[in-house]
Amino acid sequence: MDLELVVVGAELLLGFTPDRNGAHLGRRLAELGVTVIRRTTVPDRVEAIQDAVREALARTRAVLVSGGLGPTDDDVTRPAVAALLGRPLRFDQRVWDDIVARVPQPATIPRSQAEIPEGAEVLPNRWGIAPGLWIEAADGLVILLPGVPSELDELLEHTVAPRLRARAGPVVIRSRVVRTTSLPESVVAERTRPLASELAPLTLAFLPGPLGVDLRLTAWRLPEFEADAALQHGVERLRAALGEHVYGEDEDDLAAVLLSVLRARGLHLALAESCTGGLLGARVTAIPGSSEVFLGGVVCYADRSKTALVGVSSDLLAARGAVSREVALAMARGAADRFGAEVALGVTGVAGPTGGTAEKPVGLVCFGWLVPGRAETDAVVFPGARHEVRERAAQYGLFRLLRLVAV
Amino acid sequence: MDLELVVVGAELLLGFTPDRNGAHLGRRLAELGVTVIRRTTVPDRVEAIQDAVREALARTRAVLVSGGLGPTDDDVTRPAVAALLGRPLRFDQRVWDDIVARVPQPATIPRSQAEIPEGAEVLPNRWGIAPGLWIEAADGLVILLPGVPSELDELLEHTVAPRLRARAGPVVIRSRVVRTTSLPESVVAERTRPLASELAPLTLAFLPGPLGVDLRLTAWRLPEFEADAALQHGVERLRAALGEHVYGEDEDDLAAVLLSVLRARGLHLALAESCTGGLLGARVTAIPGSSEVFLGGVVCYADRSKTALVGVSSDLLAARGAVSREVALAMARGAADRFGAEVALGVTGVAGPTGGTAEKPVGLVCFGWLVPGRAETDAVVFPGARHEVRERAAQYGLFRLLRLVAV
Repeated sequence: MDLELVVVGAELLLGFTPDRNGAHLGRRLAELGVTVIRRTTVPDRVEAIQDAVREALARTRAVLVSGGLGPTDDDVTRPAVAALLGRPLRFDQRVWDDIVARVPQPATIPRSQAEIPEGAEVLPNRWGIAPGLWIEAADGLVILLPGVPSELDELLEHTVAPRLRARAGPVVIRSRVVRTTSLPESVVAERTRPLASELAPLTLAFLPGPLGVDLRLTAWRLPEFEADAALQHGVERLRAALGEHVYGEDEDDLAAVLLSVLRARGLHLALAESCTGGLLGARVTAIPGSSEVFLGGVVCYADRSKTALVGVSSDLLAARGAVSREVALAMARGAADRFGAEVALGVTGVAGPTGGTAEKPVGLVCFGWLVPGRAETDAVVFPGARHEVRERAAQYGLFRLLRLVAV
Repeated sequence: MDLELVVVGAELLLGFTPDRNGAHLGRRLAELGVTVIRRTTVPDRVEAIQDAVREALARTRAVLVSGGLGPTDDDVTRPAVAALLGRPLRFDQRVWDDIVARVPQPATIPRSQAEIPEGAEVLPNRWGIAPGLWIEAADGLVILLPGVPSELDELLEHTVAPRLRARAGPVVIRSRVVRTTSLPESVVAERTRPLASELAPLTLAFLPGPLGVDLRLTAWRLPEFEADAALQHGVERLRAALGEHVYGEDEDDLAAVLLSVLRARGLHLALAESCTGGLLGARVTAIPGSSEVFLGGVVCYADRSKTALVGVSSDLLAARGAVSREVALAMARGAADRFGAEVALGVTGVAGPTGGTAEKPVGLVCFGWLVPGRAETDAVVFPGARHEVRERAAQYGLFRLLRLVAV
C-alpha cells in the first residue's frame, strides 16, 4: 500500500521546528507495510493544504494529513479538506460533549472545534480536544490527525495502525535495533564487519549518539514471517559480536533494564549525585513501577551537602577533593546507609563549561558503585558539552552498575 | 521571492533520518528574505524527482533540490534534472581535475561525477566531490545542492546565499518568540485574539507543548529596520496581554530565568522531589553556573525516605498521605533546613500509569513552596502520560516559584 503524507505547519517550512511527525509517521507506517512515497510540507493556508491533498489523491489515492486541527485561527486543515471533498461541516454534539467533559475551561473552546465533515468517521483523541478523522472519499482515503506529537502517536497506535495494517496486506518493512553503550562507533563497525554477508538481505545502519551506538537491522518488503526470522537471526549474531556492551533492543532504556534486574534479585537502589544533578534519579523514576526498587537519592551539589546529607567526611573531601573516586564511593555508601539500600551509585565530576583544572579537566567524572559484597570505582573523562558530559556520565554509571548486578 | 524545496532521500521518508537539511534551508532562506512555500520530500528515484521539480517550477518558478548528487548508484538527481530540463550531460574536465586533485583514492570515483547539464553554472564544493549547480532554465531557477550537511551549509553560505539575497531584495523574514507556561492554549488564544489587527503585518503562531505555549511573531519580507520595530512592539503587546505567564523569550529556559532571579537576590535553592524523581534537579543543574544558587536536593521516593531524609513526620504522612499539600510543604521545609537554603520546593504526586485512586487520581501533584517570609501550597491534576505529568509538574513548580521570588 502506498500513501502520501501532507504535513501542515508554516513553522516547519521556516525551519523553526524540526519535522518530528513526518519522520515518526514514515517509520511507523513502514512497519505496517505502508510505503510513504512522498511527503509534502505546506503552510497553514487553506489553498496550500487543498492543493497538496488534491495532488496526493490524484497520484496515490491515500493521504494522511497531520496538523492544523486545533482551536486557534491558524488551524484550517478541517475546513480546507471538507471544502475540497465537498463535504459540509456539521456540528457534532457527541464530539462537543466529549470536549466539554474533559477541558478545564470549555468556555474558551470555539464550537467549531466540534464541526465534522459530513460522512467522516471520528477517531477519538484521548489526550487532546481535536479528534482524528477518517474519510473514505470518492478520490481515495483521507486521514486527518492532530499535530501535537503525543496526540498523534496515541491516535496512530490505537486507531489508525490497526486499520492500515489490514489494508496493507502481507508484506512488511520491519526493523529491529540492538542498543550498545560504552564502545566507540569504529570498534562497533570493526566487530560487525565480518557479519555483512551473513546478515543479507537485511541492511545494517549505525546510529551513534551520546548514550551509545544503536544498530538498526532492516528487512525490506518481505513476508512478515521471513522478515521476523531474518531479524531474529541478525539480532542474535550482533549480540554475539558485541557481548556485554549490548544492553537492550528497540526502545529498551538502560535504566529500565537495570531496574528489572534489580527487581528480579530483590535489591534496592539509592543514588548520590553531584555533577549529574538529578539526571540519574530522573532517568530511573521515568520508568513506571520504579518505586518498588528505587528508594531515593540525594543531589549533593554543594560540598557542604556531601557531608551533611550523605556523611562524606570533610577530611576526605579536603584530602582527595570533591571530584575523586574516594568521594564518589563515600557518597554511594552514605546514600546506601541513609536510604537502607543494598545497591548504590555515587557520581561526582566536572561537567563544565568552566571549573576544570590540569589535573581534573572538564569532562572528568568519578564513580563509586556499591553492590552486596563488592565495591568498585572508576574515573572517566567524557567528551562534549556540559549536557553531553552529564548524559554520558549517567549512562556509564548505569551501564557499569548493570554489569555488576547482572553477573 | 518565493521558492520551493525538493529534498531527496528514501531514508527521510522512512523516518530513519530526521530531515535536518529541510529545516536548516528553511531557516537560512527566510533570513535572506526568501519564503519557502512548499517542501517536497521524495525518494531517490528519477521519476519522483522529475515530478516534484516540474510541479514546483510550474507553481513557483524557483526550486532548490538537495541530495542525490553523490557517486553511488542511488544518486540520480543530476541526470533526472538534466533530462527534465532537456539539457544533455557533458563531461567537464575542470570539475574532474578538481575531484582528482582532492580525493585520496580517485580510482573509486566514477567519471560520471564530473558530468554537468549543459549551460549549468558549477558551484565549487570545497568539502566534497559533488559540486552544486545553478541553472537558469526557461521554466525558472533550479539550484542543486549536495545532501551532506557540512557541504550543503558551506555552499549555501558562501555561494548560494549572496546570489539569493541579491534576488530577494532588501527585505528579511524575521521572528521572535514569547514563551508562556501554565495557561491553556485556548486561553492564550482568547487573550491574544483582540491584538490581531494591532500586530499586523506580523503573523502570530501558537506552539503548544507540554511545558507551555510559545508564541512566535514573524515579520515577512519587511525592510530589516521595520521588521525589528514591529517585532519589538509585538513582543511588548503580547507580554502585556499574557502578564506573569510570560517567563521569557526565544531560547530562554524557565529554570535559567529562575536561577538568574535567585542569584540577583542572593537567595539559595534546595529541592525535595518525589514524583519528579530528580527531574527538577536535572533541569536546574543543566544551567551552567547553577552551583552558585542551587545547594542540592533530595529525591525522597520511598515514604520512609521522606521521614529519614527531610524529616517529614510519620504522623503527618499517616494523616494526610504522601501525596498532599502538607507533606509537599514539609518536604520543602526539610530540604531548606538540611541544605541551609532560603528558598525550597517540595513536589509529591501520582505520576502514573498506576497508583491512582478516586480521591488522588493519576496526574495529581502537590507542591510546597518556601521563600523568605512566605509559604504556599497547591494541588494540580496534570493530563498526559507519566513523562508528561512529570515534565508539566516540574515546569509548574518552577513557574510558581519564579512568581513568588519575582514579586
